[in-house]
Amino acid sequence: MVLKSVRHPLPLKQVQITDAFWDPYTRLVTQQIIPYQYSVLCDQLPNVPESHCIENFRIAAGESEGQFRGWVFQDSDLAKWLEAVAFSLNYEKNPCLEETADEMIRLVGKAQQENGYINTYFSILHPGHQYCNLKEGHELYTAGHFIEAAVAYYEATGKDSFLKIMRRCADHICQVFHSEEYADAVPGHEEIELALVKLSRVTGEKKYADMALEFVNRRGCSDYLSREHTLPRFVDVWHDPNPYLPQYGQAHKPVRQQTTAEGHAVRALYLYTAMADLAGLYQDESLLLACEKLYENITQKRMYITGGVGSSGTLERFTADYDLPNDTAYAESCASIALAMFCRRMNAITGDAKYIDTAERALMNTVLSGVSMDGKQFFYVNPLEVVPSFCLPATDKNHVKPRRQGWFGCACCPPNIARTLASLGDYAYSTDGQDTWVNLFIGGRCQIHIGGEKAQLCISTQMPASGNVQFHLTAEKPLKGTLYLRIPEYAQRPRITIDGTQTPLRTEKGYAAIPVEGIQCAICLSYEITPRLVYANPHLSHNNGKCAVVCGPLVYCLEEADNGPDLAALLIDPTQPLQLSADASSITAKGYRIAVESFAEQLYSTQLPVKTPEKLRFVPYYRWGNRAPGEMTVWVKYF
Amino acid sequence: MVLKSVRHPLPLKQVQITDAFWDPYTRLVTQQIIPYQYSVLCDQLPNVPESHCIENFRIAAGESEGQFRGWVFQDSDLAKWLEAVAFSLNYEKNPCLEETADEMIRLVGKAQQENGYINTYFSILHPGHQYCNLKEGHELYTAGHFIEAAVAYYEATGKDSFLKIMRRCADHICQVFHSEEYADAVPGHEEIELALVKLSRVTGEKKYADMALEFVNRRGCSDYLSREHTLPRFVDVWHDPNPYLPQYGQAHKPVRQQTTAEGHAVRALYLYTAMADLAGLYQDESLLLACEKLYENITQKRMYITGGVGSSGTLERFTADYDLPNDTAYAESCASIALAMFCRRMNAITGDAKYIDTAERALMNTVLSGVSMDGKQFFYVNPLEVVPSFCLPATDKNHVKPRRQGWFGCACCPPNIARTLASLGDYAYSTDGQDTWVNLFIGGRCQIHIGGEKAQLCISTQMPASGNVQFHLTAEKPLKGTLYLRIPEYAQRPRITIDGTQTPLRTEKGYAAIPVEGIQCAICLSYEITPRLVYANPHLSHNNGKCAVVCGPLVYCLEEADNGPDLAALLIDPTQPLQLSADASSITAKGYRIAVESFAEQLYSTQLPVKTPEKLRFVPYYRWGNRAPGEMTVWVKYF
Repeated sequence: MVLKSVRHPLPLKQVQITDAFWDPYTRLVTQQIIPYQYSVLCDQLPNVPESHCIENFRIAAGESEGQFRGWVFQDSDLAKWLEAVAFSLNYEKNPCLEETADEMIRLVGKAQQENGYINTYFSILHPGHQYCNLKEGHELYTAGHFIEAAVAYYEATGKDSFLKIMRRCADHICQVFHSEEYADAVPGHEEIELALVKLSRVTGEKKYADMALEFVNRRGCSDYLSREHTLPRFVDVWHDPNPYLPQYGQAHKPVRQQTTAEGHAVRALYLYTAMADLAGLYQDESLLLACEKLYENITQKRMYITGGVGSSGTLERFTADYDLPNDTAYAESCASIALAMFCRRMNAITGDAKYIDTAERALMNTVLSGVSMDGKQFFYVNPLEVVPSFCLPATDKNHVKPRRQGWFGCACCPPNIARTLASLGDYAYSTDGQDTWVNLFIGGRCQIHIGGEKAQLCISTQMPASGNVQFHLTAEKPLKGTLYLRIPEYAQRPRITIDGTQTPLRTEKGYAAIPVEGIQCAICLSYEITPRLVYANPHLSHNNGKCAVVCGPLVYCLEEADNGPDLAALLIDPTQPLQLSADASSITAKGYRIAVESFAEQLYSTQLPVKTPEKLRFVPYYRWGNRAPGEMTVWVKYF
Repeated sequence: MVLKSVRHPLPLKQVQITDAFWDPYTRLVTQQIIPYQYSVLCDQLPNVPESHCIENFRIAAGESEGQFRGWVFQDSDLAKWLEAVAFSLNYEKNPCLEETADEMIRLVGKAQQENGYINTYFSILHPGHQYCNLKEGHELYTAGHFIEAAVAYYEATGKDSFLKIMRRCADHICQVFHSEEYADAVPGHEEIELALVKLSRVTGEKKYADMALEFVNRRGCSDYLSREHTLPRFVDVWHDPNPYLPQYGQAHKPVRQQTTAEGHAVRALYLYTAMADLAGLYQDESLLLACEKLYENITQKRMYITGGVGSSGTLERFTADYDLPNDTAYAESCASIALAMFCRRMNAITGDAKYIDTAERALMNTVLSGVSMDGKQFFYVNPLEVVPSFCLPATDKNHVKPRRQGWFGCACCPPNIARTLASLGDYAYSTDGQDTWVNLFIGGRCQIHIGGEKAQLCISTQMPASGNVQFHLTAEKPLKGTLYLRIPEYAQRPRITIDGTQTPLRTEKGYAAIPVEGIQCAICLSYEITPRLVYANPHLSHNNGKCAVVCGPLVYCLEEADNGPDLAALLIDPTQPLQLSADASSITAKGYRIAVESFAEQLYSTQLPVKTPEKLRFVPYYRWGNRAPGEMTVWVKYF
């Protein structure tokens, strides 16, 4: 049995971030994103699509008059915002924000029905109808996000009113979905499963995790979602003329038999996240095996170099092995968040650092790219190649936006990015209660355990600009145990010194084990991160003959602002060195440009085009689109 | 005034095709496609989507009971079939087929309403409502196709009952659309305009052409299509929640101010075809100027090398300059047919052979590719790159099919291909009544005029396998005039001998003028057509660093059947010669393959991939997909 040692993140309260790279983002969340998004949820911003989210709750609570407006899952925006608030309160007290959150929680409680049910869409538009359309209704999805928020709020503030509200909701879910009528029902959009696991952990109530496991076990074993529209209780939401596609909701076969990532990418990865949670909780090897196969399929065949997943805009879904087009890429921000969530769980149950490599890839490229440097604009879709003039509405590239947007009619991504950045500490450390694993090197301080004893760990680093990380451990009582340091896959020539003495570096599952004895210890991990060219597997038809520039965890890209238009006409010379700027903000390379002059007004010519020498300047992908709108490309021809 | 000398095609009756390349296609039309499509229209084939087209007419005619089924434009499939039948009867008498056609014409006449109106969708589903939804209703589009068919049937058989039916319909259209209520109304899907021009020509009635001109002049000057849904008479067809996009129907600005090809590609090119017709008929220079600008925009910025146009599957539309993706290409077969139609008119009014170059590109690549070698399967969409496993339903590549289909729910393309192949003679010759221009070199015999006198022209050629064309002119009376021969853009080192004597070749607007005197004359035109590499303008971002193999009018492609999978991993060496097979059925080239071995299960690697030598085998694009389904690509990397 490989599963015993399940690790968990450090409580966010114990993690303090003071990092040159990340601190601006955590500050962005508290100072910009959370207030900005609250204004959006309250419909206070003029040039942003109306949210109506909080107004829906006011109406459902009987405190306002009017109609429901927005998507059927509109409630979830408030849930994710509350979760982000909760996370942020761990880092910094903010009584005024907490007061606003308390008021929102009160409103959610007042909108809750007698039986525990919470959903403003159905409460307002179809009162009395509940869980009547699981494939489109999103009630379990929304409930899941509120449960996550309630758990986070309880952990951050110690207040339990929100948790009580959501326990009532969860109790009702358990009751309904154990009833005969719903004996084979499964959620349309997975999320409730992972939320119930969290609720189970924080309340100690096994029944919530049991319900989650039941949902996971049912999935793909029943045709509930395909036949739901024939049930008398069915209420249509989207009037979709197409029959339900079981793959879309990972309902095409029992989860333990699934070996390829299918369907809607966020749904898929929320499911896999819950599967990993449950594999650990129930020590279920067959679930773990399925998770490992799915992870392999994603990372070996269906993931962009940026950690983006789900390449089709149609149905926001996974497609086929090696189908990763650059210019029509969907790669939703939420899907990369979900990938990071899945990877964190997989790391927790397997102890393998490779999952953190993938989580970091997703977080530092696609997820960070999802938010602008001022925290007010967001990408839903994260293409790897953009020509702005091609991204026309009402065409096949309708979904690709060359600029981040203030908000979205379907606004799942912005609050999801906010809650993820606000809970970065979850990804940085894990513990088995005895010892501590450092997964991400983020400057700051935290309370950890070494050999079961409390210790304080200070980390200072200039990541991702350089690969020097100093760890300083102090404790009141003498320590005897191990600190585990992840050695990232991109770390070249890693070296470790302990209290100034060079130590042979051995890694197991991607971690270097540092023996710690005494009341303090200074560890220095250093490795080189030089810019490198990465080539794609030739099966990946869109990138043959191309390479990407990477440096450490960051993928770089070319932008028109630095390189002029027609980025697809640029070639990089792979024999010439890449030059990283001191702050890692850019990389220059030598190459060529295929000259346009010989073509005049012709589209096609028998004349071999001329190449002229050109200097190429790359910037980190996560920063693209923060200047004048223009072309961008990650993959560059190298011949 | 540049417009005076408008040419027109030879009557199809005067053109006989006996050509090794084309004859199989014309026989395919009569022997396979026409009977096959009739079975489809009668719903006699089990594994093909139901058409219900003829049954709709039976119901509308009161000869059957039941409901309308199919698209709102379902009627047009019968119209195009009838037109194909009419064309085919020019080449070969077929009393049995003619009898079937007569029966269909009788049915159309019986389904016609008192006032002349014909449309089974509205007659059955919304009796009494007519022209109440021009943006979606397609009644004028359908009427246009029936008018075209009636003209063709009259010209082929001399019978005028169909023509009379359609004159009544056209008279009603003229009456309705000159009325005050419809004073600024325009067709949603253009087609009626070019049909009314044909009707005007064959009947000598100017009012039909005037109506066509009026429709063209109104377009873009009124907001009729945008506000139509607010009129009391509006009947919704598609319940489309989106507001009408004027570009979609070329209604965004007056046609004379349009300089870029916009919107639905077939609509656009049917409009431009009518504009060219009307420019000639009314000697309207401003219309001609608009046509020339639109032609330039298409051929210099928005046309695939295969003559495909309209790159977006969403709305089947033109997008932006240089946005010509290969793998998500729409490039509808009908759009290339429409491009050829437009080019034929432009050639007729300008006398410039360059338009025939483009028509030939469209016909011999995209249009021919649209039909399988057995005449029973069709492409609607004509991609330039296909990986079958990527072409999944319910994804962004849903529209791309790696195999031709037996029929389509929306079956505009198959009968359109049939009528086009059956009227090939229209493209081959033009005349101003005095002299004759040979546009396409198709082996056969035809009755032409030289200096106003009747002559017989025999052509023999092995095109496209070789560039030797023999012309033999005979006449009863001595001729004194000129035969004009198009010198194709791809003809290398063209030479002409007249009665065995080499003659200096001078071309004007792409034609060599051959002086003819006496009662017979033997002309030999010979040129080289060697396989060549063609490069794309670097603005065309999808094809930088790639080339295509062409030979004469034909574009070639790589298929998996010859080259194995992962075609995108193949490189061609542009310094090595291309070898054309004797029958022009394949071209071989030297190149390389990017080896997959070093990647093992990795998607991304810092190791520069190895290249191994490889022989590449290309086949003509129009023949792709006639073997086991597999990958295909037109553009190949050349570095």
